[in-house]
Amino acid sequence: MRSQLPKVLHPLGGKPLLGHVLDTAFALEPDRVLVVIGHGAEAIRAHFPDPRIHWVVQPEQLGTGHAVRLALPEIGEQDDVLVMYGDIPCVPHEALHQLLSALDEHSLVLQSMRLGEPKGYGRILRSDAGQPLAIIEEKDASAAQRALTEVNTGFLAAQCSALTRWLEVIEPQNAQGEYYLTDCLGLAVAEQSSVAVLCAEDSQVFFGINDRLQLAAMERFYQAGLAKQLLQAGVTLLDPERLDIRGRLSAASDVTVDVNVVFEGDVVLEAGVRIGPNCVIRNAHIGANTVVQAHCVIEEAVVGANASIGPFARLRPGAWLADETHVGNFVEIKNSTIAKGSKVNHLSYIGDAELGEKVNVGAGTITCNYDGAHKHRTVIGDHAFIGSNTALVAPVEVGADATIGAGSTITRAAPEGKLTLSRASQKTFDAWVRPKKQNRES
Amino acid sequence: MRSQLPKVLHPLGGKPLLGHVLDTAFALEPDRVLVVIGHGAEAIRAHFPDPRIHWVVQPEQLGTGHAVRLALPEIGEQDDVLVMYGDIPCVPHEALHQLLSALDEHSLVLQSMRLGEPKGYGRILRSDAGQPLAIIEEKDASAAQRALTEVNTGFLAAQCSALTRWLEVIEPQNAQGEYYLTDCLGLAVAEQSSVAVLCAEDSQVFFGINDRLQLAAMERFYQAGLAKQLLQAGVTLLDPERLDIRGRLSAASDVTVDVNVVFEGDVVLEAGVRIGPNCVIRNAHIGANTVVQAHCVIEEAVVGANASIGPFARLRPGAWLADETHVGNFVEIKNSTIAKGSKVNHLSYIGDAELGEKVNVGAGTITCNYDGAHKHRTVIGDHAFIGSNTALVAPVEVGADATIGAGSTITRAAPEGKLTLSRASQKTFDAWVRPKKQNRES
Amino acid sequence: MRSQLPKVLHPLGGKPLLGHVLDTAFALEPDRVLVVIGHGAEAIRAHFPDPRIHWVVQPEQLGTGHAVRLALPEIGEQDDVLVMYGDIPCVPHEALHQLLSALDEHSLVLQSMRLGEPKGYGRILRSDAGQPLAIIEEKDASAAQRALTEVNTGFLAAQCSALTRWLEVIEPQNAQGEYYLTDCLGLAVAEQSSVAVLCAEDSQVFFGINDRLQLAAMERFYQAGLAKQLLQAGVTLLDPERLDIRGRLSAASDVTVDVNVVFEGDVVLEAGVRIGPNCVIRNAHIGANTVVQAHCVIEEAVVGANASIGPFARLRPGAWLADETHVGNFVEIKNSTIAKGSKVNHLSYIGDAELGEKVNVGAGTITCNYDGAHKHRTVIGDHAFIGSNTALVAPVEVGADATIGAGSTITRAAPEGKLTLSRASQKTFDAWVRPKKQNRES
Repeated sequence: MRSQLPKVLHPLGGKPLLGHVLDTAFALEPDRVLVVIGHGAEAIRAHFPDPRIHWVVQPEQLGTGHAVRLALPEIGEQDDVLVMYGDIPCVPHEALHQLLSALDEHSLVLQSMRLGEPKGYGRILRSDAGQPLAIIEEKDASAAQRALTEVNTGFLAAQCSALTRWLEVIEPQNAQGEYYLTDCLGLAVAEQSSVAVLCAEDSQVFFGINDRLQLAAMERFYQAGLAKQLLQAGVTLLDPERLDIRGRLSAASDVTVDVNVVFEGDVVLEAGVRIGPNCVIRNAHIGANTVVQAHCVIEEAVVGANASIGPFARLRPGAWLADETHVGNFVEIKNSTIAKGSKVNHLSYIGDAELGEKVNVGAGTITCNYDGAHKHRTVIGDHAFIGSNTALVAPVEVGADATIGAGSTITRAAPEGKLTLSRASQKTFDAWVRPKKQNRES
Repeated sequence: MRSQLPKVLHPLGGKPLLGHVLDTAFALEPDRVLVVIGHGAEAIRAHFPDPRIHWVVQPEQLGTGHAVRLALPEIGEQDDVLVMYGDIPCVPHEALHQLLSALDEHSLVLQSMRLGEPKGYGRILRSDAGQPLAIIEEKDASAAQRALTEVNTGFLAAQCSALTRWLEVIEPQNAQGEYYLTDCLGLAVAEQSSVAVLCAEDSQVFFGINDRLQLAAMERFYQAGLAKQLLQAGVTLLDPERLDIRGRLSAASDVTVDVNVVFEGDVVLEAGVRIGPNCVIRNAHIGANTVVQAHCVIEEAVVGANASIGPFARLRPGAWLADETHVGNFVEIKNSTIAKGSKVNHLSYIGDAELGEKVNVGAGTITCNYDGAHKHRTVIGDHAFIGSNTALVAPVEVGADATIGAGSTITRAAPEGKLTLSRASQKTFDAWVRPKKQNRES
Repeated sequence: MRSQLPKVLHPLGGKPLLGHVLDTAFALEPDRVLVVIGHGAEAIRAHFPDPRIHWVVQPEQLGTGHAVRLALPEIGEQDDVLVMYGDIPCVPHEALHQLLSALDEHSLVLQSMRLGEPKGYGRILRSDAGQPLAIIEEKDASAAQRALTEVNTGFLAAQCSALTRWLEVIEPQNAQGEYYLTDCLGLAVAEQSSVAVLCAEDSQVFFGINDRLQLAAMERFYQAGLAKQLLQAGVTLLDPERLDIRGRLSAASDVTVDVNVVFEGDVVLEAGVRIGPNCVIRNAHIGANTVVQAHCVIEEAVVGANASIGPFARLRPGAWLADETHVGNFVEIKNSTIAKGSKVNHLSYIGDAELGEKVNVGAGTITCNYDGAHKHRTVIGDHAFIGSNTALVAPVEVGADATIGAGSTITRAAPEGKLTLSRASQKTFDAWVRPKKQNRES
């Protein structure tokens, strides 16, 4: 990966590769989940503080057989073992459940897949009757064997005692002195144990990630799957190939998502929501029939129903907008509640504020919430009207139905129902002459 | 579709599916257009108030044969009938014209298409001589018949009297008791009428929309066709797959459209216009050689030639910008005219205003057009200079060549040629101590 | 191309087609580079003022053979000649180097390619032994010859004297009276000279550009190649198909580039930089571990390490941001230096300014740098705090540790360590009545 980050911590759909594998593992409701780690062990362990995970450190990288052998002492002899891989993130748990189920009738169950271009993979060798015989690595394969298109995925299931027995006798086969887990197949066949190799129709889910090309390809495959699910659930996507979901998106019926939108974390879109092009939405809840126009960035925010957001709006953490609110262009809202029907339509910063219902905030309004040391709150009552280009120096309160004149700097409470402003008188200077351009400047 | 919206009202390229079909129908210059509606009839009818459409309500969904039969009494016996489908939006009218033309020599003309994967479609059965014999539904087909790749599209043409005759005798064939229009082929063959089945080379235009996956796929197919037309007409598209046109885009020669642009409604781009990435442009006219930089949102606006817009500019309805105007970042312009050579370059809101020529509007300027009840106009004369961070409280007038000092709130007319400002005197407080941070806040 | 611009000046990856060809030519370290120009000669020549280029004007368009013949007198008889095409931009210089190397053993070396759909290309005719015999144009080819998939690319190498000899005898072959360079092959074979035709595996690099469809397709092919290089070098790309590089992007390890980013000119991203979706970055240097959030536009700017930029930030030419600076939403910075740890987080315009370390600039701050004729500088000392909605009228200086009260217009120096402000007193008007809406307005 040419990276400081251990490979299994690279994200796919916003979640580390290993996180996907662990989620799948836990979905199988196992007795134990053991993770063998070597390179980058501490970073990986720190990333998954889940106490259900049992960590096994592999001090030397001596191959898959060695890694599994290190883990087996932690498992009961009669228990079934499923071997998964931290860099193969998209295997559906149903396929793995099938592997485990087949242990009822077999001592060893492997997962294979069919590949149009099998190059580089170990081929599954079968008898004329279709019985699995061995896995032949590419370099050892004859021309006829290389033409085989059923290849090994690495995934397998066996009883712990059998795995232990096989792994004790496998030998390192190559210059690096690595022990190959796949040798178990030959050993099981040799001892005439019952062996099954299940062949997957959809091979792409068994692809591993070894470089960023493969990671990028898997990211698009993963996203295509999420997009398909949304389409099937009744969401309109203007371009399924220009959608990114890095987390969980819950979208009700008749939601429309325009092109090039990015969702991160947990996002809920209620029925009839429309998300415009190029929005980035992270950990947010958007109420029914609300329209989010183009180019909005929404993070850790809640928006009610029938609201209108953007374009070019930014909702930051703690923005809480009630139904029928309007937030327009070049407006930033942070850690503030905005009650029903209020409008902040243009070029404003609302931070640490509490707005009542049907407040109208004029263009260029700034809540001055920070005095260089602490943040203070601005409270604005129902139906207040804040004239444009106003600075509200917090802590400050504007009463219900109050009007603030344009261009004011409000430092004390503005009483309800009245006009309050701060304004220097307007003067015209007759003698003044505008500077003349002496040389061309841009 | 899992939708509240009737299927044929779902948009493709911004227009309902049925709208595409109706446009194609009218392009054939028919005597009458009849639309049979059942589910969602009222919503559909309301969406198309075109008096040329004759609506036929099908109270029960008894199949295509039943639907057509309901419409036939409205048509003259000797008239030719073309059957189209509200959920098959992309059929070119040339193909349909061919169907109708073939009625000169045949009693019944069907449209078929060639499919690589014919699964699910009715296959066209032909004699050894190539004569159409019947349409075999998938479930009734033998293995050999299933291997046939010529399938029925559903589109057909026939004289009204013949259609009437056939539809009176067809029987419901399935559990749902539906009458199939396709049975006409067998009946016509049985009575030894002359029948033709025209096979289309381009099958995708005959695909129907039954779910949002198909809708999304058709949207991309439709957009790819529009992109190809633009490229052929001499428009440079940086990425034809990242372009969305939902309406009509008229682009003159040497227009360049960067990636991820969305056009909606009627948009005209004159020669040499350059549209930057991620712009959204709706119902607008952009003059020759104007540059619209990245991330602009333009709606119901007119921009002259050699202008410079954006990045991050928003032109709202009624923005009318003359030649050589400059509108810069984080600027919103609504219902305003801006004459030749004027500049509004930074962080401003210009609403309900009239700017003369070569006006310079400083950063952070706000036209305060709304008093909480009414909108008022701001008028600024030629060559005026508006200092930064100024609020212009409308109704207000700034004279030609006038200068407004930075930070002013202007409530009365500023006379031409003179400096006008409102400004409190600057004071320094020696004893003041800045608040100290007592605990860490973010 | 349906364009005012000569074809070879149309950009691919931000560089004219001919620029790519010239770069490849110079990479071969030739003695001379001659460019034959006809249509649009002056515009082309003006675009490449490189004195290493020798221009040859072809007054009439009489074919490739004629074009090359015009250039040969400028070349030494014993010199090797490589013929390239101004509209075939993506040929790797390694392939051309091979052509030239093969001249050690052959008198004429042509480049062919294998095409799945050879239609329209001249086919390479070989003897049973594989010896090249001739190039057969599509129109002259038999059915068997048309089935050949090895086609001519047009690229060839030969000694100048040989080329001269052949080109003197070729005849115009068609209605247009054009001389075909490809006839050299037949002539060389006829005189029993040694001829080689090298067949390329990757044909797409030899595709020429004849219309905007082909230009758009080549743009995506070119971009895909650049994306692959970045992935291999250790850059994470969230979607390799949504990346545009028009110039040179240098990205260190563990850089992440989100979807839909456009890079132009020379851009350097140091290790660990993260670029958010939809950014446009031109001629910029971004320091290690800096995060550029969504929707930023950065041009001719330098950003230090561990900085945070955006979303919705615009850095314009001359923006120089030190380490650990923060620039937030709806902020424009132009021709300004911002020292370590300073913050400009909201809705501000900073132009022609110099900010010290750990300065805090409040929301809605405007440096008024332009007086209508000249630009002036604003200087702000370390640790200064600029209250929100402040206008700093340049030339002006704010001392270190100074505090500016919110809503001020500062026109004279603000002394260090003290509070300075300009503020009219706040007044409330008891008798004032807010205007009532008389008729509905939007």
